[in-house]
Amino acid sequence: MSHLLRTRPATTDAMLAVFEDAATLRHALAFEAELARAEAAEGLIGKAEAEAIAMLCGSIAIDPAALATEAALAGTLAIPLVARLRKELPEAAAKALHKGATSQDVADIVLVRQIRDGHALLQADLGRTANALAALARRHAGTPAIGRTLLQDALPIGFGLRIAQWQAGIVAAVARLQDEVEQGAVLQFGGAAGTRAGLAGKGAAVSARLAAALSLPDAPPWQARRGGIAGIAAALAILVGALGKMARDVSLLAQNGVGEAREPAVPGRGGSSAMAHKRNPTGCQIVLSACLRAPGLVAGILAGLPAEEERGLGGWQAEGPALAELFLLAAGATEAMATVAEGLEIDEAAIARNLEAAALGGDIGESENLVAALLHRGG
Amino acid sequence: MSHLLRTRPATTDAMLAVFEDAATLRHALAFEAELARAEAAEGLIGKAEAEAIAMLCGSIAIDPAALATEAALAGTLAIPLVARLRKELPEAAAKALHKGATSQDVADIVLVRQIRDGHALLQADLGRTANALAALARRHAGTPAIGRTLLQDALPIGFGLRIAQWQAGIVAAVARLQDEVEQGAVLQFGGAAGTRAGLAGKGAAVSARLAAALSLPDAPPWQARRGGIAGIAAALAILVGALGKMARDVSLLAQNGVGEAREPAVPGRGGSSAMAHKRNPTGCQIVLSACLRAPGLVAGILAGLPAEEERGLGGWQAEGPALAELFLLAAGATEAMATVAEGLEIDEAAIARNLEAAALGGDIGESENLVAALLHRGG
Amino acid sequence: MSHLLRTRPATTDAMLAVFEDAATLRHALAFEAELARAEAAEGLIGKAEAEAIAMLCGSIAIDPAALATEAALAGTLAIPLVARLRKELPEAAAKALHKGATSQDVADIVLVRQIRDGHALLQADLGRTANALAALARRHAGTPAIGRTLLQDALPIGFGLRIAQWQAGIVAAVARLQDEVEQGAVLQFGGAAGTRAGLAGKGAAVSARLAAALSLPDAPPWQARRGGIAGIAAALAILVGALGKMARDVSLLAQNGVGEAREPAVPGRGGSSAMAHKRNPTGCQIVLSACLRAPGLVAGILAGLPAEEERGLGGWQAEGPALAELFLLAAGATEAMATVAEGLEIDEAAIARNLEAAALGGDIGESENLVAALLHRGG
Amino acid sequence: MSHLLRTRPATTDAMLAVFEDAATLRHALAFEAELARAEAAEGLIGKAEAEAIAMLCGSIAIDPAALATEAALAGTLAIPLVARLRKELPEAAAKALHKGATSQDVADIVLVRQIRDGHALLQADLGRTANALAALARRHAGTPAIGRTLLQDALPIGFGLRIAQWQAGIVAAVARLQDEVEQGAVLQFGGAAGTRAGLAGKGAAVSARLAAALSLPDAPPWQARRGGIAGIAAALAILVGALGKMARDVSLLAQNGVGEAREPAVPGRGGSSAMAHKRNPTGCQIVLSACLRAPGLVAGILAGLPAEEERGLGGWQAEGPALAELFLLAAGATEAMATVAEGLEIDEAAIARNLEAAALGGDIGESENLVAALLHRGG
Repeated sequence: MSHLLRTRPATTDAMLAVFEDAATLRHALAFEAELARAEAAEGLIGKAEAEAIAMLCGSIAIDPAALATEAALAGTLAIPLVARLRKELPEAAAKALHKGATSQDVADIVLVRQIRDGHALLQADLGRTANALAALARRHAGTPAIGRTLLQDALPIGFGLRIAQWQAGIVAAVARLQDEVEQGAVLQFGGAAGTRAGLAGKGAAVSARLAAALSLPDAPPWQARRGGIAGIAAALAILVGALGKMARDVSLLAQNGVGEAREPAVPGRGGSSAMAHKRNPTGCQIVLSACLRAPGLVAGILAGLPAEEERGLGGWQAEGPALAELFLLAAGATEAMATVAEGLEIDEAAIARNLEAAALGGDIGESENLVAALLHRGG
Repeated sequence: MSHLLRTRPATTDAMLAVFEDAATLRHALAFEAELARAEAAEGLIGKAEAEAIAMLCGSIAIDPAALATEAALAGTLAIPLVARLRKELPEAAAKALHKGATSQDVADIVLVRQIRDGHALLQADLGRTANALAALARRHAGTPAIGRTLLQDALPIGFGLRIAQWQAGIVAAVARLQDEVEQGAVLQFGGAAGTRAGLAGKGAAVSARLAAALSLPDAPPWQARRGGIAGIAAALAILVGALGKMARDVSLLAQNGVGEAREPAVPGRGGSSAMAHKRNPTGCQIVLSACLRAPGLVAGILAGLPAEEERGLGGWQAEGPALAELFLLAAGATEAMATVAEGLEIDEAAIARNLEAAALGGDIGESENLVAALLHRGG
Repeated sequence: MSHLLRTRPATTDAMLAVFEDAATLRHALAFEAELARAEAAEGLIGKAEAEAIAMLCGSIAIDPAALATEAALAGTLAIPLVARLRKELPEAAAKALHKGATSQDVADIVLVRQIRDGHALLQADLGRTANALAALARRHAGTPAIGRTLLQDALPIGFGLRIAQWQAGIVAAVARLQDEVEQGAVLQFGGAAGTRAGLAGKGAAVSARLAAALSLPDAPPWQARRGGIAGIAAALAILVGALGKMARDVSLLAQNGVGEAREPAVPGRGGSSAMAHKRNPTGCQIVLSACLRAPGLVAGILAGLPAEEERGLGGWQAEGPALAELFLLAAGATEAMATVAEGLEIDEAAIARNLEAAALGGDIGESENLVAALLHRGG
Repeated sequence: MSHLLRTRPATTDAMLAVFEDAATLRHALAFEAELARAEAAEGLIGKAEAEAIAMLCGSIAIDPAALATEAALAGTLAIPLVARLRKELPEAAAKALHKGATSQDVADIVLVRQIRDGHALLQADLGRTANALAALARRHAGTPAIGRTLLQDALPIGFGLRIAQWQAGIVAAVARLQDEVEQGAVLQFGGAAGTRAGLAGKGAAVSARLAAALSLPDAPPWQARRGGIAGIAAALAILVGALGKMARDVSLLAQNGVGEAREPAVPGRGGSSAMAHKRNPTGCQIVLSACLRAPGLVAGILAGLPAEEERGLGGWQAEGPALAELFLLAAGATEAMATVAEGLEIDEAAIARNLEAAALGGDIGESENLVAALLHRGG
């Protein structure tokens, strides 16, 4: 039962893969395997049991659809997953499995691993965009163009200053996202009530080993303290908005009555089923659509922050789908603008023509210095 | 590439099927087939061409993943779909296909058909819920219980009054949704610029035939006038919220220190991966989670209302995924509360014990009359 | 301590007056007065006491700032208000005051009265807008103009068709708002726990009298069932969005490179502090700004729907400010577009010039029929 | 025309003062005065003119209501403000006033100054809260209590661990807000089209002087690059949510059937107009209400990020009111929780009784170590 026709226009196959069932299962099984190894290293379970668990986690084949049905009933993935694993294990290993852990530990580990994978995936396209825009901004820093405010001709600017503003906005958003991911996508390991009970006082040691094995920063449990996740969500939406600023401008510049810039011609992109002559700003469309969807997803995550007691009822369960959606939108928007940034068609004749029509002179002020300053800040 | 582990906990397989690629394709192909037939009936294209188109639309096998990739590039489904159909048709039929239509006509027809299918699917579970709650409300109308305001004991109520309030809220939300679907999920057929050009003045006649064939109310084009879709979205979120009111109360009543009611025991539901003794309010969790996610989805659709000129850039493209998500959440919430309503375990002894502990007497005022009035209003 | 510089740009003085402290107090005092009278008529309190109460409510002078401080501490307006009234009344009347009522009854009565006043205030400007647009649509129905989709030239349309679409969207939104206000802004009278206790079985009779006296439809209590309020909020946001559709188009049409229409010249409006030559689309700015703010306000109200038990903790208290803000935004948007609709400057030469530049012919299809159909629907 | 009865319950007088008209005017006038001085220091205008401007800005009395009406018409504050100032100045000074600046420079300077003042105001109460919670967490770190997950009894915890989680969430949110304010609330000085034209190449020097005089970090113009403002908004909502986590728990712990903790008794707070026996969690109500309102305000700001070209139409104008509202909500929430944190009544007998009733033993795991770790992280 695929939903690609509804999902795919806004995102990329690569980001869909980060959040697909196979990835979810892989992260969940890695958690169980590395937890067993960490506990064995601390003498809490036997080494043989740990290896049996790890081997099973590395080899078991699970039908995601069947597991999803069970998880939907149970309310969480870990319950049917652990039950299935236990069925395949000898009794001692079955008992050792998932020791000191709880369902939300699994869910949150999956989430933070997907956050980190999703973040890594964004970075390549974001780097392309920033570099391409910086080059364009420098090249056109001194090109006089009419600046527009409130959708009306205002005073001249250097055409590259507009582009440098796009670049600076994207670069700042990338930096914020980096910070939030670094601080928020960290190990969650708390057990049933967030106390790391049942580990003979070795919870901190297990936690440290587990974090290292899963390539996550170690941290005290945060199962009902979700500000870090909310910070990541907000940073993603701000990034989408920064890309949207660029998309808004490109779509306005590409209007027939303006014509100063337009998206590159890409085979299969931007046509019309009714009008052969059209070249639609389809990349911009993807980003502007994401800009409408992202804010509400953030609002949903923010609304869930007042979680109940040691583990909330409904709030954190709403985060996973919303955060995945934000990454999907960010990926689609990022890829679209990387393509546009690298191939943006700038029509200098149209720029000159529009400037002349405005009849507001050609003083571009300190545009060139500001381009340099903006690009410098972004590092 | 399935995403059920992220999607499924909050929804049902049946609602996922309403929005899956196969359904999307079925609706899109039905549009092209019925458009051809309507145009042939009005003498705009040949009958033979219309039948060739209709036959192809009824038989063609399309790989949704490949089509989705093309659609993502093109920015809309119809472009690659029409291209594929044309390749399979004789020249005259290929030319007759999609006559006077445009991509958004296809997209909006798919959307309104899915809205109507999704709405029909909700009704069964909503009816179950309303009936079960009405019966419970009547049965417990005169049972004295402590009422609680601002999470503190207040004064006695009839226990059934609380339930009648749930019922009335759900019934009113169902009625609003019905109205909005009836008015908003109507035929869209406008062509390239929304003028029904190229149809020799027979646009209205084609539109009427097409609407009848697709079981949709006929209407003038609304491609850039999206208030009807926003109304449906809001009605869905209000319905989710009405179910959430019930879920909030059930989850509070099920607390160990209260114990007045709890979800029915369902095998595989509500356990804990760490604590065998627990019976979690998993149905409530699904609904309360939906209550956090739905409002932001509505906000996104509302934000897109100021569409650009004859067809917007980004706004209407954001609606489809958000509206699908709202139906998915509504389905999960509806199913969860239907099960809870039909099996709610009410502990009269606990109710009596808590009332006594409150030491605030037993005057339940006009609770019984109000139950009757509330249930009567809902019809 | 005024906040007009932050509040006023987006709204009108008249709508601010609907929600100001004096109005709030007037509605709250009317509730207490009419409640006393209704209870006296049913023999629940003495007629003399009722008249003493009503007289005091009609004459007492209260400093809103001092009362607001007390209300902020108490968590609700009614507590300090009732206390102040009791201090001024003879003992028997003091005891009779507020009988069978509770704080939220007062708050909700204030809210629904303000909703109805706010709604009435909107209607005049909305009527002006709908009429002016209908006239413009008819006048320009057959004027060939280039239609634009995805911000690109598409195919010709009748210029009036664009305007008829604005009109139809606004008219439909007005009708939805009317329905929601009629159904949702109704009497709230439930007492401490929503049971109408302490009224010797005459709660329904008191409720009927009170409703009539306050010009509100009678209804069972709905203190924790807030779907009606959410429906009103959503209808307001959809109305703002419908006005926003018009504002978006006017602002795009007014671009220097397009020039087909622009806001009327209004002394003091649309200038620039830096550029004397500019004529900014300031009316559009007000509406488009409202379109960004309204959706989140709706989301906040929707998120509060799962209220706790007989009276929620935090949810309904969040509604009043958000709903007031929605009315304020709707008023500003409505007034702005009424002015624009009545004075819209349409440049037929520019329309013709742009159509010719597009070189896409002049077939406007069934634009004229569609204008008639759209205007007819709106009735 | 005051609106305190609608505004005040959710906020404090002190924060209202930060955003009141007098403060807005003070910041706007300071901008004009310091701009003139900076330009005089760079030789762009005469020193005498600069001093005349500065003197007038320090002494002029302006009726905010009248100015607000003019600003609502003009679409921005600066136009009528500058006009009024010019009327009072000799011709040379009138000409020198506002040189190289534009309306949005004024608006953004007002905004960032109010952000910094609002932020400073929050810090005192936030510090009180963090300190009080840290002390409580340490005191009760080892007190066995029943932990609750999904609103059901789970396993024992140290009661102080719950409190340490509140504290850690608040402290992290405070740190994020600090970062965002530091980076986002910076000088805006760009002039008509954001190029610093008309300053003879001395724009950077004027900017540096102006920033120093206004106690703001210097920065290139950001009039259409609003990610920094969105970051501040999101940080405020996350802070409100972190306070909401505490409020949620306190309100649940204060339920009659739980009774483990409750808000301190404050004269005039938490009563009921109908029930003398009640002690409502009014502080929690204020915070939980803020938690519903804040997310949508953030969504509105995020939705405005794709601003048009050199100065957007509608987006940045929507930020000021929303950001003010977020600060108002944060102030109310912060004050409420500071009071609760410093006076929280913890009932050890009830804690012990509930733990015993749960019959789940008393192993609190590593609660005490985790308390130490959480408090340490927060610094």
